Amino acid sequence: MMETKEIVSYVAATLTTVSFLPQAILTIKTKDTDGLSLGMYSLFALGVLFWLIYGIQILDEAIIVANAITLLLAIIILSYKIYNSFFKK
Amino acid sequence: MMETKEIVSYVAATLTTVSFLPQAILTIKTKDTDGLSLGMYSLFALGVLFWLIYGIQILDEAIIVANAITLLLAIIILSYKIYNSFFKK
Repeated sequence: MMETKEIVSYVAATLTTVSFLPQAILTIKTKDTDGLSLGMYSLFALGVLFWLIYGIQILDEAIIVANAITLLLAIIILSYKIYNSFFKK
Repeated sequence: MMETKEIVSYVAATLTTVSFLPQAILTIKTKDTDGLSLGMYSLFALGVLFWLIYGIQILDEAIIVANAITLLLAIIILSYKIYNSFFKK
């Protein structure tokens, strides 16, 4: 049986990972990135990349999967922000 | 001396925690939350609360500190989003 603290960590990881899905969907649908911070998504995507590297180093499947998904979602959101900030006429 | 993987996890935790600071500053300054997902910040704040509980359960100071800061920043951003969504005339 799983320990309480193990369940808590799984709930936490699921929530923080899944949370970026509604944000990615909203950004794709509205393309409105005015209220999104470029600094946030740059630092956050880089941080999640480091979490992914850490997961690979300690061979922890949950950390790898959660951060691979979060990184993908963060990169999608960041791409819209970069496009709107620098390339939109 | 710290192991490489320990350093990687500290860099990761610092980046993902600090990343919410520029977002909170932007939201406080512009009050523009149209592009922010209410679903994201609700799920994310709840997830970070669970990470904080997990940190307290395993008595890991780094997890406690990082998630306490992130929770505070996420709640600030979420408060602006809730105010703009439900209370702004």
